[in-house]
Amino acid sequence: MLNVAVIGAGRIGRVHARSVLAHPGTRLALVADASPVAAREVAESAGTRWTDQVDDVFADDQVDAVVVASPTPFHVDHIVAGVASGKAVLTEKPVDLDLRRVDACLEQIRGSEHRVMVGFNRRFDAGIQEIRQRVLAGDVGEVEQVVVTSRDPSPPSPEYIASSGGIFRDMTIHDLDMVRFLVGEVATVQATGHQLDPVTGDHHGAVLVLTARSGALATIVNSRHNASGYDQRVEVVGPRGALSQANHRPTAVSYSSAEFSDRQRPWVNFFLERYAQAYAAELDAFVRAVRTGEAPSPGIADGRAALLLADCAVRSAATGRAVAVE
Amino acid sequence: MLNVAVIGAGRIGRVHARSVLAHPGTRLALVADASPVAAREVAESAGTRWTDQVDDVFADDQVDAVVVASPTPFHVDHIVAGVASGKAVLTEKPVDLDLRRVDACLEQIRGSEHRVMVGFNRRFDAGIQEIRQRVLAGDVGEVEQVVVTSRDPSPPSPEYIASSGGIFRDMTIHDLDMVRFLVGEVATVQATGHQLDPVTGDHHGAVLVLTARSGALATIVNSRHNASGYDQRVEVVGPRGALSQANHRPTAVSYSSAEFSDRQRPWVNFFLERYAQAYAAELDAFVRAVRTGEAPSPGIADGRAALLLADCAVRSAATGRAVAVE
Amino acid sequence: MLNVAVIGAGRIGRVHARSVLAHPGTRLALVADASPVAAREVAESAGTRWTDQVDDVFADDQVDAVVVASPTPFHVDHIVAGVASGKAVLTEKPVDLDLRRVDACLEQIRGSEHRVMVGFNRRFDAGIQEIRQRVLAGDVGEVEQVVVTSRDPSPPSPEYIASSGGIFRDMTIHDLDMVRFLVGEVATVQATGHQLDPVTGDHHGAVLVLTARSGALATIVNSRHNASGYDQRVEVVGPRGALSQANHRPTAVSYSSAEFSDRQRPWVNFFLERYAQAYAAELDAFVRAVRTGEAPSPGIADGRAALLLADCAVRSAATGRAVAVE
Amino acid sequence: MLNVAVIGAGRIGRVHARSVLAHPGTRLALVADASPVAAREVAESAGTRWTDQVDDVFADDQVDAVVVASPTPFHVDHIVAGVASGKAVLTEKPVDLDLRRVDACLEQIRGSEHRVMVGFNRRFDAGIQEIRQRVLAGDVGEVEQVVVTSRDPSPPSPEYIASSGGIFRDMTIHDLDMVRFLVGEVATVQATGHQLDPVTGDHHGAVLVLTARSGALATIVNSRHNASGYDQRVEVVGPRGALSQANHRPTAVSYSSAEFSDRQRPWVNFFLERYAQAYAAELDAFVRAVRTGEAPSPGIADGRAALLLADCAVRSAATGRAVAVE
Repeated sequence: MLNVAVIGAGRIGRVHARSVLAHPGTRLALVADASPVAAREVAESAGTRWTDQVDDVFADDQVDAVVVASPTPFHVDHIVAGVASGKAVLTEKPVDLDLRRVDACLEQIRGSEHRVMVGFNRRFDAGIQEIRQRVLAGDVGEVEQVVVTSRDPSPPSPEYIASSGGIFRDMTIHDLDMVRFLVGEVATVQATGHQLDPVTGDHHGAVLVLTARSGALATIVNSRHNASGYDQRVEVVGPRGALSQANHRPTAVSYSSAEFSDRQRPWVNFFLERYAQAYAAELDAFVRAVRTGEAPSPGIADGRAALLLADCAVRSAATGRAVAVE
Repeated sequence: MLNVAVIGAGRIGRVHARSVLAHPGTRLALVADASPVAAREVAESAGTRWTDQVDDVFADDQVDAVVVASPTPFHVDHIVAGVASGKAVLTEKPVDLDLRRVDACLEQIRGSEHRVMVGFNRRFDAGIQEIRQRVLAGDVGEVEQVVVTSRDPSPPSPEYIASSGGIFRDMTIHDLDMVRFLVGEVATVQATGHQLDPVTGDHHGAVLVLTARSGALATIVNSRHNASGYDQRVEVVGPRGALSQANHRPTAVSYSSAEFSDRQRPWVNFFLERYAQAYAAELDAFVRAVRTGEAPSPGIADGRAALLLADCAVRSAATGRAVAVE
Repeated sequence: MLNVAVIGAGRIGRVHARSVLAHPGTRLALVADASPVAAREVAESAGTRWTDQVDDVFADDQVDAVVVASPTPFHVDHIVAGVASGKAVLTEKPVDLDLRRVDACLEQIRGSEHRVMVGFNRRFDAGIQEIRQRVLAGDVGEVEQVVVTSRDPSPPSPEYIASSGGIFRDMTIHDLDMVRFLVGEVATVQATGHQLDPVTGDHHGAVLVLTARSGALATIVNSRHNASGYDQRVEVVGPRGALSQANHRPTAVSYSSAEFSDRQRPWVNFFLERYAQAYAAELDAFVRAVRTGEAPSPGIADGRAALLLADCAVRSAATGRAVAVE
Repeated sequence: MLNVAVIGAGRIGRVHARSVLAHPGTRLALVADASPVAAREVAESAGTRWTDQVDDVFADDQVDAVVVASPTPFHVDHIVAGVASGKAVLTEKPVDLDLRRVDACLEQIRGSEHRVMVGFNRRFDAGIQEIRQRVLAGDVGEVEQVVVTSRDPSPPSPEYIASSGGIFRDMTIHDLDMVRFLVGEVATVQATGHQLDPVTGDHHGAVLVLTARSGALATIVNSRHNASGYDQRVEVVGPRGALSQANHRPTAVSYSSAEFSDRQRPWVNFFLERYAQAYAAELDAFVRAVRTGEAPSPGIADGRAALLLADCAVRSAATGRAVAVE
């Protein structure tokens, strides 16, 4: 039984707390949040302890592993402190919005990288796992083209966007990781933004074209809003065939009438519903890695790599030129 | 080049006239209809001759083959006269609504059955052809269950229904032929009607359960109306798998919005649109049979067999008992 | 917090035990099974108590409610004892295979019917709930036709079938309840079986046609085996439109190659996977009913009604006649 | 009745000849091809005249309109000669591979532009027409993103590619026209090629990102090969919803077995099958324009505009920079 503390009792922290409760191999040992109200609420509904002092987590001998679900600016501190106190760490993405801070973090945890996992939850989606395995099995041959469509149902608040690092570091970063997951390292990034929001100075939509070192060409289509829900599709094409993942709907019911046929409910609304299974599978992969002592995947270097691609996208969108990755 | 006369210049006669015009191996030699207005209209738009005396067709040495698209009560006379005058005959279904007249017809054309084809157009639908061929190829194994769903977009007029022979002889007869086409001869028929129309005394909906001699169980679900268009589906299940044919839509466009996803236009409206390809393929099969001298399929015995099943359905619906076929 | 005991530590008892564990308003208080090994295994993995004496459940003051997941012949005894000891009861279906025993049970619990719920899990499937609500909202108009397709992936053992009461009482009973759930009371039942198993004397396939008192016509297509998995579809048609529920697949991934397009993985294999959400929702409905004191639905009278229809189906299949219900 | 001559008796010329034969308002008056064998074959099967002297077409008083289906280098000559001889012209795309020659052509036919239509057949596809009309009707709101997926089943011969002008001028040009058809004029083009063929020096795959003057962002994904057939999809997204066109299949039959569900046949193989309806609708639009005297659409200026975008794509792919259009 792995004793797990969750740092952060906000929306995503609660998702992780529930995953820990439901996992047969973990115990929710402690919930920490600077807000005692939030920490207590989550802990009490789970019948466990809470603290509003995050350092309590690292000092607690009963805690084996930490889930870092604090606000992004605290991620690096909590990762480093967790590793320093001998605990395994599962951190929410992004590691940080500043590549130099990520590099400093990597420096500080050198030798313990295998104790840290980054929560790119989509890698654990059953459909993406199926696509990956079938790509590795050769079902499409050598991958030639990848198209990732990723549109959120509606944009976050201007305040959130202002501190998000912009669409490429906040939203596209998941898709950049997906491209790396499916075709490996990226050689060049070309990004085009549109729908510039005058308030935040950030694009609400973008298209990225990435050339992989393998020769594959990946396209990412992003939007911060989509009328019919959370649009999450992936298509992988090679000389032998194509794999594609469609959107999920709440039920398999369709409705036909005099005006139409096969009308279905909108796609599931957002990531908590769409990737509920993935969060549980992510925790399970983390628990297995801790048990076996193997490095969990994706690791902190994967977090860095995705952020680097996002930085390249920022530069490309500003200049209209393809940017070579380092 | 096969010289073809079309008897009947109504809706279905015009379909056949167009098929004859479009077929590279046929020439539309003559159009006959008791109404000179109708006959002339069809003939002139096709640049061919017309007559309002049907007997002219049988006396015409330039006519090699006849398509019988006259009203049902005239089918037998026109089949018999066509065969007697040495012409090949493609007749619309049903051969007749009275099994005794069909038997009399068979008696009169004895020895020339191979010169007559019955227009069960659905057998020539590309999807049904694919299902049949894959069933014969063993894709599902020995067929165990067949489900035919057949719903018209809207009912014909009460006048039409009054002379139609009722839902089983008029509408279900296509589905009965489909069951025979897919699983062979039928041993028992059980029929249940509902939505009795007080004006016509006919059911607007029905379900039939047929046991085939092979042991397969076939179900037919019928309705004279369907809000979203012409509902034409077939499912064939065996121990190794299942084949199913979905409905056709005018385009492959779907529309998603805040209220729904993947809404599509209604299914194609009715048989002329849905089975346009099938009418052309039916004529082609007839032309090939005439050329080779082989008996066309389905033949007049198939028309009789489907009518016999319809008669059994009428009796079963009236008594609530399964009826053994002869 | 509702303290729940689960009687029966077999496959379905374990499903219920997990639902009780996961439900925020329930506590798994006790696990009972005549096999101490099974009872202990389930209880220990859940951190709760166990007994191999079922009577302990009824004597236990800490138990508020009982889930009856014992073998079918014990259901009535456990329902009656549960009610007599003041506990709310959620019982697996069927109440019993013998209508007289069900009637005796109803007699014994008279006045406490509102304390007993019958586990027709499919009623709680999110898709079926959606269809029901939309039917009640008038989306299809007055229901005219219902088609329930229900095929298991593979048959149970001959031993199981021998004690199952036959396909109609064991398997079709779910579909009979579904018809009642969607169109209300049934007036006549016509059943046709096929694929008679010489070992068990039971049919492996069947089609039922039911006329509802409302005039609707319902068709049930059953098979004990289906190559591509658990085939669970429902179609409801009325004058204004049609609602249909498609099968579920493990992921939304499809694969295209030179030989085909849009190939998908088989449907989810069987009821534990397909209706996982429904078991949780069923428990939730039970908990809410116990809390509010309202009668849970479906109640034991619904269990009786479905069994009565199954009995009618047995008689119809034997005689080839439609059977009037009561 | 419009008397039409077809110049070019190759693959696409034969398609046009068949369309002219089938159209109720046109007569195939003459077939011209430098190869007398080809010209005669097409003409004789259609019962019409032929010539191996293309100038005969322009001198023929019985010819009202000309379909130019000659090899690309002859297009401009035949357009100019057709217009000069007073005939309406429907020309295959591209007008020419050299923008200067297109400009010279425009100069020579000045004042008669309304007599020339360019055969961007996809504009006449029923699905694209539906999308266009619904976009104009406001179904998606102001268009924000367009994604055009266009993959051929297999590449043409190296010889063909060598004279094709390259993937952008030969293949992408259709998709560039589609973008203009759906979102209007394009402001910038960014193109990335991959799968460079060492023999031809041409890319076998490419992705283009175009910003429209409207602010919309359009993405084109191209490949010269696709295992499961001709991949032709369009997606149009706006704030109110999304319209998308799926691929076509030969039938609506699907097959499920123990290994998979809903496997379907590959998509229709190539443009002659996929756009058969579009070629007929294109001719019909041309005939109507000739009759009414209105300028047909798309006109030769549309042909020029698409070629200009292709030229921009060539430059962008070579430099890695977004190219402003003019």
